Amino acid sequence: MDYDAIVVGGGHAGIEASLALSRIGFSTLLITQNLDAIGRLSCNPAIGGLSKGNIVREVDALGGEMAHLIDHSMIQYRILNRRRGPAVQAPRAQADKFTYARLAKETLESQSNLSLFMDTVVDLVLDKEGKNLVGVKTARGHVISCKVMVLTTGTFMEGRIFIGEYDAPFGRLDEPAAMGLGTALREKGFPVGRLKTGTPARVRKSSLDFEKMELQDGDPVLMPFSFDYDSVERPMLPCHITWTNDKTHQIIRDNIHRSPLYGGKIVGKGPRYCPSIEDKVVRFPDRDRHQIFVEPEGVGTEEMYLNGISSSLPEDVQWDFIHSIAGLEHAQIMRPAYAVEYDYLDPQNLYASLESKHVGNLFVAGQTNGTSGYEEAACQGLMAGINAAQKLKGEKPLVLSRNEAYTGVLIDDLVTMGTKEPYRMFTSRAEYRLNLRHDTCDQRLTGKGYSVGLQSEEKLERLKQKMEKIEAVKDLLSKHKYEQKTALTALKMPEVTIDDLRSSIPELDAFDEPTRYQVELDIKYEGYIHRQDRQVSRFEKLEGLLIPDTLDYGTLEGLSAESREKLKTIKPRSVGQASRINGVRTSDLAILILHVGKGGRHGNV
Amino acid sequence: MDYDAIVVGGGHAGIEASLALSRIGFSTLLITQNLDAIGRLSCNPAIGGLSKGNIVREVDALGGEMAHLIDHSMIQYRILNRRRGPAVQAPRAQADKFTYARLAKETLESQSNLSLFMDTVVDLVLDKEGKNLVGVKTARGHVISCKVMVLTTGTFMEGRIFIGEYDAPFGRLDEPAAMGLGTALREKGFPVGRLKTGTPARVRKSSLDFEKMELQDGDPVLMPFSFDYDSVERPMLPCHITWTNDKTHQIIRDNIHRSPLYGGKIVGKGPRYCPSIEDKVVRFPDRDRHQIFVEPEGVGTEEMYLNGISSSLPEDVQWDFIHSIAGLEHAQIMRPAYAVEYDYLDPQNLYASLESKHVGNLFVAGQTNGTSGYEEAACQGLMAGINAAQKLKGEKPLVLSRNEAYTGVLIDDLVTMGTKEPYRMFTSRAEYRLNLRHDTCDQRLTGKGYSVGLQSEEKLERLKQKMEKIEAVKDLLSKHKYEQKTALTALKMPEVTIDDLRSSIPELDAFDEPTRYQVELDIKYEGYIHRQDRQVSRFEKLEGLLIPDTLDYGTLEGLSAESREKLKTIKPRSVGQASRINGVRTSDLAILILHVGKGGRHGNV
Ligand SMILES: Cc1cc2nc3c(=O)[nH]c(=O)nc-3n(C[C@H](O)[C@H](O)[C@H](O)COP(=O)(O)OP(=O)(O)OC[C@H]3O[C@@H](n4cnc5c(N)ncnc54)[C@H](O)[C@@H]3O)c2cc1C
Ligand SMILES: Cc1cc2nc3c(=O)[nH]c(=O)nc-3n(C[C@H](O)[C@H](O)[C@H](O)COP(=O)(O)OP(=O)(O)OC[C@H]3O[C@@H](n4cnc5c(N)ncnc54)[C@H](O)[C@@H]3O)c2cc1C
Repeated sequence: MDYDAIVVGGGHAGIEASLALSRIGFSTLLITQNLDAIGRLSCNPAIGGLSKGNIVREVDALGGEMAHLIDHSMIQYRILNRRRGPAVQAPRAQADKFTYARLAKETLESQSNLSLFMDTVVDLVLDKEGKNLVGVKTARGHVISCKVMVLTTGTFMEGRIFIGEYDAPFGRLDEPAAMGLGTALREKGFPVGRLKTGTPARVRKSSLDFEKMELQDGDPVLMPFSFDYDSVERPMLPCHITWTNDKTHQIIRDNIHRSPLYGGKIVGKGPRYCPSIEDKVVRFPDRDRHQIFVEPEGVGTEEMYLNGISSSLPEDVQWDFIHSIAGLEHAQIMRPAYAVEYDYLDPQNLYASLESKHVGNLFVAGQTNGTSGYEEAACQGLMAGINAAQKLKGEKPLVLSRNEAYTGVLIDDLVTMGTKEPYRMFTSRAEYRLNLRHDTCDQRLTGKGYSVGLQSEEKLERLKQKMEKIEAVKDLLSKHKYEQKTALTALKMPEVTIDDLRSSIPELDAFDEPTRYQVELDIKYEGYIHRQDRQVSRFEKLEGLLIPDTLDYGTLEGLSAESREKLKTIKPRSVGQASRINGVRTSDLAILILHVGKGGRHGNV
Repeated sequence: MDYDAIVVGGGHAGIEASLALSRIGFSTLLITQNLDAIGRLSCNPAIGGLSKGNIVREVDALGGEMAHLIDHSMIQYRILNRRRGPAVQAPRAQADKFTYARLAKETLESQSNLSLFMDTVVDLVLDKEGKNLVGVKTARGHVISCKVMVLTTGTFMEGRIFIGEYDAPFGRLDEPAAMGLGTALREKGFPVGRLKTGTPARVRKSSLDFEKMELQDGDPVLMPFSFDYDSVERPMLPCHITWTNDKTHQIIRDNIHRSPLYGGKIVGKGPRYCPSIEDKVVRFPDRDRHQIFVEPEGVGTEEMYLNGISSSLPEDVQWDFIHSIAGLEHAQIMRPAYAVEYDYLDPQNLYASLESKHVGNLFVAGQTNGTSGYEEAACQGLMAGINAAQKLKGEKPLVLSRNEAYTGVLIDDLVTMGTKEPYRMFTSRAEYRLNLRHDTCDQRLTGKGYSVGLQSEEKLERLKQKMEKIEAVKDLLSKHKYEQKTALTALKMPEVTIDDLRSSIPELDAFDEPTRYQVELDIKYEGYIHRQDRQVSRFEKLEGLLIPDTLDYGTLEGLSAESREKLKTIKPRSVGQASRINGVRTSDLAILILHVGKGGRHGNV
């Protein structure tokens, strides 16, 4: 056996998977097409955002890397929705793309147990029965064996980019697609489909007129994504906002027939929730403008990202519509917008551990599972890496519940319902979002990271101290008065912030910003949180009813034919998961509950 | 007209060409396949070396960029041959590859008059007569017009890489070749040929045993390559040296039939002076070992470059022979060694201005002209840019003589004699190398840079002040005694260095290292320098005999048929150049001298 584990692809999923496996102690090889492209941010130069910021911090609490990478490369930091409820607050940071990728590469290189190799995987090697993966084959003819593998091909598997009439076999512009693997997987009977996503043009900073745009600064105080330290120092750059207008929309409407999508060249489905500008114009004819965030791609670079107007229209059309926008009249286009279409694998074919049901020892993560987004990729990569390690250790997989992490919601959604378009996370996908606050990820997940061997004793100790600090602040607030009430009670009022209390309680200054922030959320939204806890306990009952993996649905009397088929395919690990399968009826659930109530409690996952 | 000038390719030639054109004031577009690859160091992570270090400083004195890039990215600095004559002393620096490329990209982006665009040029657009270039066509279908163009395609034009039995259409591993342009140029009648070069494997630092190698530190004091400042601060990393051995050579001999070169797959010729390890083993069977410099590719990266063992043998053979080397027994290979074969254009088809004789307004520079090496590319790019600008201004081209710059030697060699293998610069190619000292480049060239609009008044003033400082130091030395002699006379002795004098003449400390260094060379080698000056004046006589570009060699009686053909093709600008054309006889030169003596003095170039 050459390696315990092989990870294919050095994107955001592959980074987490390979670090997790090697940090847990397994000899791991990362094979990626180009070492110079490790950790490259393909699309927007930003990490985090609503629910995605939470995912970054979940990854961190479990022992992953993404939070460190963004903490040390960010160039603007904001807590979104700071003045709204805690369920919808989340950190988001602009990244310096070059620094981000460089840090990612250097982190992987300096990791013991982890080797890096530049090549393209073109086929899987299976055992004689064709049931289990035993290695990979590469474009340059290497055959490398392993016990487990994590596949993270991003937008590269049989990738093809489209710009109007032009198309080429790339995963990103001018970066060769990974050709061959998609075909090989189809031949091996994997459920392979096509998806597409897009990216906007990059324009040159000095050719823009920022006077015509709205300024958007970051927060004055910067809180790290990682729970491992209390503060970071980084330069802070502004972003700007502008809008499309009637003329922009007219240009797009006049040329819509030249889009490769409308012409039928692209068959893969795009993300409904992250549409191209032509999609927005067609689908929302009444909207008279769409917002564009003009975001720097780094500290020293002139490249600016036009967040909100991804497109696959021909370049002459892009040229026209970009120049119709306030502030962009003279924009120099450095890279065109384009769409990319690629192979993905139906995630319903995976267990909740992210292991394939079709071929054992093969774990799949990231865009390959039909998601879109760096954070979505990272959390899957981490979980696939952890569970591949668990398998190597002969231990049960770590499966996060929908009420303990967005990561749990994401994986449960994927494996239970699959996806027909690039799946991205939203706050609204989580039923119990008050439980999934970004500032409390460590409380929920550090212990789990520790249990699988990714977090250290020191981190547990640090968490303990943090909890003590929080208690100390609460104690302080209960002992001080603010406008006739205790400060604790005062803080429950919408108009009072913890910063307001600092002048009368100077002792608060001794605590770091993350601690004060968390106390504010805890206290302000105590009532909501209690209410949600009651809902959660009902939810947990169904999740706790595990379905043995040996269950033969054929013998279960009374199930509807549709439910029986669905249950056989998805193999839900609990009655809770079964209840979320499309088409499984309440009457069928009742039959399941009755059966499982008698049976064992250790389901496969 | 879209732009005054278009530069194709963002490598080391394209960087200089596009900066020169835009800094001189012409609207310039740089089209390059991938913005993320601008300024990438394809092969060794080092700039400078014998004669190459001089070229870097020539580029700087003329107003180019390379010296700034390496000054701000270097991680080790050495003056080679510090204890030998000034003609063979030269600075060499290891570069942090990522920082180098990032700086290059950011420098281009922040340059006014210069636009950057990501695309691949696939054809030239000529005027109706097919005589002059008027624009380019790109892979994505853009047609962009210009008045002049500089073509710098590096190893990418119809590039193909080879590793044993494997080959693929790349310019560097996993970077798409620029396909189409080579074919288009052949069809247009350009003299297109194939060349090849190679690069060694990259191995992982933490897998090497440095105890078994020899340490090579940099110089304690670092002198900038650029004449624009007196000092720079950079981190300094060590390099290491190891050697191949009998076993290494045996492995290579046993597998030589598996080389794509020996199998006939590669038709392009490789550099005789920079051979692959298999070439060395075959050509020098008596050598029992070959040196390998183990060089870091950057501060944070684990990738190490194995300078001296480039190869295109299959990877299993690479694996075996690398592991046979002391210190590399357990080396993890991160990228394999490979050879690259690409299209180049016969430089005899160029005027000394680097403009094509075949198609007007087209200038060609860098690897496309059959050279190899970053510095060789940079100086050509700069000269092509300068001369394209001169053409736009309607002014005479700037042609450097063989006795004022290695750049002059290089271009004169290329256009006069062409090359059948990748041409690289050596000290020995220059007849008057004492005149081409690296520390005096500014004295020879800053004024020329100023005259073409690339250098400022401030730089001339700075040069004047430097000369005054040098005089002041010499004055100081003539007034102080050292061991019975004046310090000036003492310094002529081989065993006395200027550092030795510092203890007795503390006033010397007030001067910067570059000034002291230059005075030392000036004084120590005064005699040689005077002697060479006399030779140079003879040389200059023939160079001064310019041949009018209207000269019809058909009417010159007495010329041998061979000479007549050669002279017609090469169109030498001076009798001096004519004397260096292979096959032109002394008797023919006499005829030329006689004729030109009567005629005009303004030759084409
Ligand atoms: C044009 C474009 C537009 C996008 N638009 C959006 C968007 O609007 N919103 C959004 O959230 N996200 C978007 N993304 C997606 C975002 O980049 C991805 O979600 C994220 O990068 C996924 O991470 P990953 O690790 O799954 O894959 P990637 O980051 O794509 O990394 C995959 C890596 O694996 C390597 N690889 C692939 N196959 C092989 C193989 N067979 N052998 C060896 N190496 C291999 C690749 O070279 C690459 O380095 C877009 C991406 C692209 C290219
Ligand atoms: C494998 C390998 C081995 C080498 N070995 C050595 C060595 O041993 N010694 C040595 O001194 N040097 C070596 N080099 C050469 C060294 O890299 C080059 O000499 C130097 O980079 C040349 O600079 P350049 O500007 O001419 O070309 P490059 O640095 O190759 O840059 C060319 C640029 O132009 C772009 N481009 C090309 N064609 C087009 C087009 N049609 N349209 C748009 N853009 C285009 C490319 O994408 C690239 O960015 C090696 C290079 C390679 C790849």
